[in-house]
Amino acid sequence: MTAYTATVTVRLKHGVLDPEAETTKRALERLGFELDALRSADRFDIDLDAPSARDAEDRADEMAERLLANPTIHDYDVEVTERE
Amino acid sequence: MTAYTATVTVRLKHGVLDPEAETTKRALERLGFELDALRSADRFDIDLDAPSARDAEDRADEMAERLLANPTIHDYDVEVTERE
Repeated sequence: MTAYTATVTVRLKHGVLDPEAETTKRALERLGFELDALRSADRFDIDLDAPSARDAEDRADEMAERLLANPTIHDYDVEVTERE
Repeated sequence: MTAYTATVTVRLKHGVLDPEAETTKRALERLGFELDALRSADRFDIDLDAPSARDAEDRADEMAERLLANPTIHDYDVEVTERE
């Protein structure tokens, strides 16, 4: 078994309203910052042991499907790196 | 001016309790997943125009300092990529 960290990033699908991001963008503009757009996402770093990177990725993928993301409104991606 | 996307990742500092991550970890374990640890972070993707990548990074850094992160409890990092 090897120690991996799987990073799952969960974003709202294109077209789903994100009032929190909109509020953050306006707050930055009120502070004098110029920006074209702001998107927010949730990131989960998951430490797990697995026989291969592929296996770690499959398990993180299943975690996203079953709990971390809501497939109706979210897209997600998974990246796996080996842990020291 | 060039179009950039600055990605600001805001994490809790080491040692700051994260009850939401702890709850998510337990929920995954109840679903039968084995994992050693789970850390959550907020990620902001900010589209902005700047004369250089360095300048875009400096501005995103200032946004993090002034609004996106709370220096008492958060660490953050900034990554800048050129936008098509």
